[in-house]
Formats: sequence, C-alpha cells, structure tokens
Amino acid sequence: MQLPDSIPTPADIADAARRIAPHARRTPVLRSRSIEALAGCEIHFKCENLQRAGAFKFRGACNAVFSLSDEEAARGVVTQSSGNHGAAVALACRERGIAATVVVPRSAPRIKLRAIEAFGGRIVPCEVSQSARDAATREVLAETGASYVHPFNDTRVIAGQATATVELLDEVGHLDVVMAPVSGGGLMSGAALAAHYRDPAIRAIGTEPEKARDAHDSLLAGERITGRPTPTICDGLRAELGPLTFSILREHLETILLADEAPIIEAMRLIWERLKLVIEPSCAVPLAALLAHRERFAGLRVGMILSGGNVDLDALPWQADRD
Amino acid sequence: MQLPDSIPTPADIADAARRIAPHARRTPVLRSRSIEALAGCEIHFKCENLQRAGAFKFRGACNAVFSLSDEEAARGVVTQSSGNHGAAVALACRERGIAATVVVPRSAPRIKLRAIEAFGGRIVPCEVSQSARDAATREVLAETGASYVHPFNDTRVIAGQATATVELLDEVGHLDVVMAPVSGGGLMSGAALAAHYRDPAIRAIGTEPEKARDAHDSLLAGERITGRPTPTICDGLRAELGPLTFSILREHLETILLADEAPIIEAMRLIWERLKLVIEPSCAVPLAALLAHRERFAGLRVGMILSGGNVDLDALPWQADRD
Repeated sequence: MQLPDSIPTPADIADAARRIAPHARRTPVLRSRSIEALAGCEIHFKCENLQRAGAFKFRGACNAVFSLSDEEAARGVVTQSSGNHGAAVALACRERGIAATVVVPRSAPRIKLRAIEAFGGRIVPCEVSQSARDAATREVLAETGASYVHPFNDTRVIAGQATATVELLDEVGHLDVVMAPVSGGGLMSGAALAAHYRDPAIRAIGTEPEKARDAHDSLLAGERITGRPTPTICDGLRAELGPLTFSILREHLETILLADEAPIIEAMRLIWERLKLVIEPSCAVPLAALLAHRERFAGLRVGMILSGGNVDLDALPWQADRD
Repeated sequence: MQLPDSIPTPADIADAARRIAPHARRTPVLRSRSIEALAGCEIHFKCENLQRAGAFKFRGACNAVFSLSDEEAARGVVTQSSGNHGAAVALACRERGIAATVVVPRSAPRIKLRAIEAFGGRIVPCEVSQSARDAATREVLAETGASYVHPFNDTRVIAGQATATVELLDEVGHLDVVMAPVSGGGLMSGAALAAHYRDPAIRAIGTEPEKARDAHDSLLAGERITGRPTPTICDGLRAELGPLTFSILREHLETILLADEAPIIEAMRLIWERLKLVIEPSCAVPLAALLAHRERFAGLRVGMILSGGNVDLDALPWQADRD
C-alpha cells in the first residue's frame, strides 16, 4: 500500500481539475442573507453536497482513478471506507469502466453499503479494527493486483479535493478565509493548498467536533494523536490525520476551531431551513464553529465548503432525544 | 381590487426580468442521473426552492411591487395569503422600503406567519372564508390606499413567475417539455408563456394532486370549477384558477397530469435523497406526475420548476402515519 505522498503542486491541482471536469459537477455557490445576518460576515457556501455521489469525495476519487495508466486501471481499484469515499470510488471506477472493491467494516450502516453497491462496487466485509481492515485490503491487493486509493493521505486525492476551492475562488473572487471540516484532512488540505496557491493571504481554518478533536490536538502537540474515541454525531469526521495531511495542515492552517454537538445540530438545521439544502451532520461543523467564534470573522468574506449530504432521512438528529 | 389582467407579452416578461434582477436570485439548474434513469428522460430541475423567501413566489411579488409608481408605492401593498406569496410580498416590500400588509386566515400555520413577520410584513388575521378574507382586504385598502397584489391572477405576477422559465431555457437551451405544479396557475401560466414565446413547439404540461384536481377538471369542462375541498398534503396547491390564469392555461397547456398522495411523498423524498434539496410537498407533484406517466416523456428533454422549499422540518410526511 505504497501511497503517492508528495504535497500536491499547483500543476497537480490544475491537472486534477482538467481530469475530473468531464465527470464531476461544477457545484453551485449559494448565500443566505439571514445566515449572514446571524453570522455577521459574508459566507459563500460551496455546495459539495450537490456533488455526484453526494459529497466532495468524488473529486479526489475521480482524480485518483483517472490518474491510473490503462494497465493499472485494468487491474481495478481497492479502497477502505465505511462512508462517502467508498461510494465515490465505486462511481469513479464505473465511469472508467473498471472494477472497484471496497473493504467495509461489518458495523457500517446498510445505507452506505447500498450506495457502494448502487454504483457497482464490490463489498468485502471485515472486522472493525484497523488491523483487520488492513489485512483484508492487503488480501484483495494480492489477489487482484489492483491499485489502492487511500481516502485522504494521497497526493491525487488531495489534489482532487482542492478543485472545489479552486472553483469557489474562481466564482466569487477574493476571500479572506476558507473553512471546511477536518476528518482525515484531505478536504482541508486541498482547500488550504488551493487558497495558498491563489493568494497566500487567504486564511485557512479547519473545524472539528469537540468530541473528535484529534486533529486540533495533533496540531497543538506537533505530532499526530491517534486511537481516541470519537463519540460525535458526525459520522463523517471520525478518521485521523495521515502523515501527509498532517504535514500540510501544520504548514497551512491558521487554526482548527471546535464545535459542540448541540450547536452542530442547530447549524445543520439552519442550513436545511435557510439554504434549503440537505446536508449531513459533519457538513454543518464549519458553520457551527463560525457561529461560536463570530468575533473572529466579523465583516470578512468567508468561503465554506459544504462537504456532503448523505444522511438518513428517517433519523434526523433534531428529532431524536439527545443529552 | 381592480387587477391588471391582460396576458403578459414578451416585453412584459423581459421587463420583469430586468426589474427583478437586482433582487431575485438566478437559481441553479440541477440534474440527477439516478432520477433520470428512473424516469427514462432528461430532467432539468430549476431550483426555485433556492429562491429568496424559499419559493418562486418572490419573482412575481417583486415584479409587482417594483412596477408601482413611487406615489403608489408610498401607500404600501396589501395581499391575501396563507402561504409563500405573503412572505414574498413582505420581502419585496422590504426591498423597496414600503409597508406590506398580509391578510391571513386564522387557520394559517404559525411557521408561515413567522416568515411574513420576519420580513417585516404586518399581519391582519381574519376568518377562513373567502368572503371574510375579501372583506378584511377591502378594509385595509380603504384605510391605507395601498395597492393590491393578487397571488396569481395578475399580469405583473405572472410575468414575474415567467422569468424562472426564461432563465431555465437560457441555461439549458432547447427543451421538449416544461412542467410545473398548478394551484392558482400563476407559475404554470408564466412557464407556458415563456416557453411559447421562445419556441411554440415546447409543450407545457401542468400537474396537480389528484385530491386537488380542480384546474384539470376546469380545463376539461371549459369553465372554472370552484368550491371543491382539497384534502391533499400539498398545502401550496389549494387555490383555484383565476379568470386570467384559466384563459392562459386553456390556450397554452397540452394537459394537466395528476398525481396521487403516496407517489407525491415518494417523489418528494426522492428529490431530498438524490438532489439533496429541501422541497415542500407541492413541489414534488411534477416529478410524481412524470413518473406516473413515463411513457409520455420517454427520451425527451424536460424542464421542471421546483417551486418551493418551505416545509416544517419537524413534520416530514414520510414520518407520519398516513392512510
């Protein structure tokens, strides 16, 4: 599982944009005056929940899959994911006409498995532990000779995610700040690099749930903190930084702001109500963090990546009883 | 309550587009490959749920309000509405800096009243009957000398609603069919006229819930049918055609297709799941009707207006027990 692990260059990101253009959507950028009045700043929402397969993940997966040589591609692609990345890889492989295998822990929700299958991905179930996932992945790699596409710690994936911020900046012009959620750090690494390459004065600010603050604490400690529980409602934000994303975020982030669970749910509902967009809880973390730190953003022009909209419509968080 | 009741001309619609451009959003047009695979045709969704105040209604209200002379405007605007039109008029009046009064039946849901108030509209409650609404409206008109803006049977309002279809056609080029829901008929009249003026070969197809099929039956009977109960979940589709919208739809509609309640709820959920858009039940009627009549649309390029997204997030229809 040797990974392409150099920091994406401006050329890598421009190549990614060209490579994914025939496949990915150029998602709209929306604003809400009532949310801006609450926030005290301009917010330009880049709607990656409207991306194919319902999340920004398709950009990175698509760039990785279409970066393969024909010979490599013919042997297929393998990944590990219990979430949006698995579906994104399956869809990207379908677009290229090659096989996708997704190693999925048995605990994964049925709804996520259905998405992978809907795009023609083969599911290999395994036990939940990381070592079990790695073993299952190695087995598939050995059997098939397929290429491995990591969900975030991969140059091609980060370059793909960066294209969302490139489009955002192309559309709205200057921004003071770009914000996104941080899980494994692929989206935020791409956003920070795209912003930095456009204008080093743009501030890149990551966001995490207070209950999954490993990236925040890793940056503070100067080393990756791993193995913590992540008891947050944000099922998309439970991964940990990889070596590559850690080094990019350490170099380029101003900070990581935290948000508590109840404000995350409130921000999620606010986006549903005012922007009329279906987003998943993870996707609401940047707005929750901004609203909890209004003074930091007063009067600024903020770009915010809405990361995804894959949520179980039968179990909305504001309808459950919560502590 | 003399209404401007001529059929909007191409010039009226072009004027409306210019008049509302500084205020209304140019909403995005989205597609979903999975919905198209289900439907067997191309569907270009014009996302008026993302319009200001959450519905296409802002276009017509804005055009009417900004059509007033300064002298007329100074005396304010009055309308009757228990739904999206009231909020749209309140917002349009706030944009122009004039007073809005909305006559609202006491039965209207709190959530709709809050939207009118949030935009600075004055609410005058009245009894539910149409005669009570008219009496309350006349009283306000007599007191204030304000201008009346009817929700649909008004040249200025129809010309405003038509701009949604103008934008849709500008963006996607040729369409075989344009579809929208029919309540009072303002949106569908505007869509049919905009399509006809662009290319008389474009087919205009209205849609209604089976449980509020008064417009369908009116076209069939050749005269307006009124006074029927409308026991549908689609709270935005309970109005009846006016003389102006009836005459436009009679001239320009190919037909009105009907949809049952359960398929409407399924179509609503499909749009939430696949397009990641919050829409209200009324807004799902065209997709439900299309899916119920697939053969009619096979292989065509369809434009569909998503009319609005104002829905109570605490009471989603697929979560309630229904017959």
